Amino acid sequence: MSKQQIGVVGLAVMGKNLALNIESKGFAVSVFNRSPQKTHDLLENEAKGKNMHGTFSIEEFVESLEKPRKILIMVQAGAATDATIDQLVPHLDEGDIIIDGGNAFFPDTQRRSKDLEAKGLRFIGTGVSGGEEGALLGPAIMPGGQESAYEIVKPIFTAISAKVNGDPCCTYIGPDGAGHYVKMVHNGIEYGDMQLIGEAYHLLKDVLHLDAKELHSIFTEWNKGELDSYLIEITADIFSQYDEETGKPMVDVILDAAGQKGTGKWTSQSALDLGVPLSMITESVFSRFLSAMKEERVAASKILTGPTPSFDGNKEEFIENVRKALFASKIVSYAQGFAQMRAASDEYGWDLKYGNIAMIFRGGCIIRSQFLQNIKDAYDRDAALKNLLLDEYFKDVVENYQDAWRKVIASAVTNGIPVPGFSSALSYYDSYRTERLPANLLQAQRDYFGAHTFKRVDKEGVFHHHWF
Amino acid sequence: MSKQQIGVVGLAVMGKNLALNIESKGFAVSVFNRSPQKTHDLLENEAKGKNMHGTFSIEEFVESLEKPRKILIMVQAGAATDATIDQLVPHLDEGDIIIDGGNAFFPDTQRRSKDLEAKGLRFIGTGVSGGEEGALLGPAIMPGGQESAYEIVKPIFTAISAKVNGDPCCTYIGPDGAGHYVKMVHNGIEYGDMQLIGEAYHLLKDVLHLDAKELHSIFTEWNKGELDSYLIEITADIFSQYDEETGKPMVDVILDAAGQKGTGKWTSQSALDLGVPLSMITESVFSRFLSAMKEERVAASKILTGPTPSFDGNKEEFIENVRKALFASKIVSYAQGFAQMRAASDEYGWDLKYGNIAMIFRGGCIIRSQFLQNIKDAYDRDAALKNLLLDEYFKDVVENYQDAWRKVIASAVTNGIPVPGFSSALSYYDSYRTERLPANLLQAQRDYFGAHTFKRVDKEGVFHHHWF
Repeated sequence: MSKQQIGVVGLAVMGKNLALNIESKGFAVSVFNRSPQKTHDLLENEAKGKNMHGTFSIEEFVESLEKPRKILIMVQAGAATDATIDQLVPHLDEGDIIIDGGNAFFPDTQRRSKDLEAKGLRFIGTGVSGGEEGALLGPAIMPGGQESAYEIVKPIFTAISAKVNGDPCCTYIGPDGAGHYVKMVHNGIEYGDMQLIGEAYHLLKDVLHLDAKELHSIFTEWNKGELDSYLIEITADIFSQYDEETGKPMVDVILDAAGQKGTGKWTSQSALDLGVPLSMITESVFSRFLSAMKEERVAASKILTGPTPSFDGNKEEFIENVRKALFASKIVSYAQGFAQMRAASDEYGWDLKYGNIAMIFRGGCIIRSQFLQNIKDAYDRDAALKNLLLDEYFKDVVENYQDAWRKVIASAVTNGIPVPGFSSALSYYDSYRTERLPANLLQAQRDYFGAHTFKRVDKEGVFHHHWF
Repeated sequence: MSKQQIGVVGLAVMGKNLALNIESKGFAVSVFNRSPQKTHDLLENEAKGKNMHGTFSIEEFVESLEKPRKILIMVQAGAATDATIDQLVPHLDEGDIIIDGGNAFFPDTQRRSKDLEAKGLRFIGTGVSGGEEGALLGPAIMPGGQESAYEIVKPIFTAISAKVNGDPCCTYIGPDGAGHYVKMVHNGIEYGDMQLIGEAYHLLKDVLHLDAKELHSIFTEWNKGELDSYLIEITADIFSQYDEETGKPMVDVILDAAGQKGTGKWTSQSALDLGVPLSMITESVFSRFLSAMKEERVAASKILTGPTPSFDGNKEEFIENVRKALFASKIVSYAQGFAQMRAASDEYGWDLKYGNIAMIFRGGCIIRSQFLQNIKDAYDRDAALKNLLLDEYFKDVVENYQDAWRKVIASAVTNGIPVPGFSSALSYYDSYRTERLPANLLQAQRDYFGAHTFKRVDKEGVFHHHWF
């Protein structure tokens, strides 16, 4: 029997769909699953008559693959990934490539990469974005690991990935944990985008009292302009859908308690470790937490008072101002996320290519949008750009929109509508462009109570003042 | 020779000062330091003629102590603590008590507690607040560990601790990592307090153009009212101090780049793990990061524009509004910090006593203030209080001050002054009291792109809608 070109371990929906996607592009695939039933099911159903080879032991699975072996692990992130790697390793040969396509936490990927390299094996930790459907029809792929290993899997990865204008949404990200890191930040940015859309919705609903039909047309309109993106598109669509049971708009029957899977949290925790101000995305994570405290909020709403929203301005103008506030805040969110990638790249020696990363986010991903092209353009103009806000395009937008942005936040604050995303984004903009922040007082306090010392504005050195 | 009552390992400034403090209260102390020179120095200088016994080997040190032995480790947090414990353990007997008084990360304390308990030893991880001076003259002490162990060290701990109206600022906090956890949150709250004072300062300086002399009298005035606290007091004092070299106010010669030691970061990271919205303190951490990017900000300030601050209202009223905004935001910050302690207590089984914790913060600590008595009163009224904002005292203050709070933020936003602390606190208040947040849309989006399902407002269960 001739050998298969790639093997997939783990046939839950993501693994199964990726195996089917790979096979559909003309690659011979071996599959293995811990419980044989899933393998039988796949072979007898979706993979029937296809070039997919089922195996029922690790030995048989490994033996079925051409060398250097390419093995894609699609099991639950964490202990299951380690267990699968441990099972595979004794059967592999030098130069074989293990690929982890799960949602691994990047330090795990760094550790695995190091361990496997010491054993003469190669390891790719790759972000796979786009959910079940993306896995089957074309995900965005963010592979990190040895570049030599990537070159070997590249034909398969680029073949199965999403395409935008013919370009594959897959590019080599960098060594060891770089791929999983970029996927993590992608998810953080997704949290940010969703939070900002939620705040816009909240304002339009509670200040202007717009209904789902009106919201549908506003978001449809917004999707034709700068905000053109998958998330705005589905938001428009969501507002057009009604509950069969009650006849009410779907949004009105859904409970306002957000779920999450933890990658947004990781992004914030990493930002804290790296010393990067990731305020907007972190506020999005905290907002999900707050929304999930539904019962406590309902109780609090009967105790704590606030202003009754009122509005007597121009409705169209307010809607347009909200759009501008959303777009300006979105720019800050991406500026923070890309600044975090830059800090991680410096810290971990990844040499990330930010423009390329923006490009692969354009397909398969939840955050896919026109806007990512502007980010690519910005890094084309200056590959060493320190912050997206300093790019001419983004700078102009924010400057032109800031008046509207400030008005919307002032109005939200006055009306008692929480806008943690809009305000943290604006605070970041205002802090970032401020030459002199009040941290001089903070340093004085730290020196006062803890002799922590300070620097001076007028000369080099480290100083302590005798405060008492 | 009679045995000593307690031993101190590690004679850097904190260990030395605690040893001197303990001796001064009439307890016989043994000391040990890895390099003998520090021990010699201490015995020949500060401890000369005192009841302090220097030892020069671990064996001699352990042998010098009465049983059950009480050994306070004051070495650098992390590997040095583990190394010291490993050195001690072979020489100890069942029931002996190791006390870690360093700034340990609480999971380390949990691990050490478990390891030592398995070896028949007892372990106390204790927060010690108040810096070098506090260590010598009276720190706040937050011990976590076996209650039986605490009862044995209690006479020493309460004797050396700070006192407020005769009450020792030391109380049993809870099992294993509870003490270090509470100390960590204390530090996070300290970050929050300092951030809010910084924002008030920024507004008064850049909107009203007040000078150090005027700021000195405002903060002196504020310290007579509800804001009465150590940090407001030293802030007032700071504004009264001038640089000898230039004759300028000290604050004006200090660089606006904040330092930090990482405990604020830990507090935020733990909040993210626990699912607690700790937005205000986290914004404080991010603000320190942003301030530290001094060069980048200076460059950005020449590129990015904003409004020129202007003011034409009543100056006294604005100052009073800023005071109210500061106080309302401070209440939210403490509400978040105490909610986090409650979540940690539930998660780790600590059974924390929030009122007692507030009481020991009143002395020795950087955050000591009148205000902590209000927190104690709130938990006396309702020990199961879910959130400080729901207590009658805090509810009344925030409700009465919210109009001023909102005006100050709207004015800051309009004038381009960053107020991340004030705004995140208000966003939290407005979210917490909102029965229906926009997270229904977010759940619709998640169900749309990832089939993540949602709950409904009108019946129990988990649902999925066929969006396309």
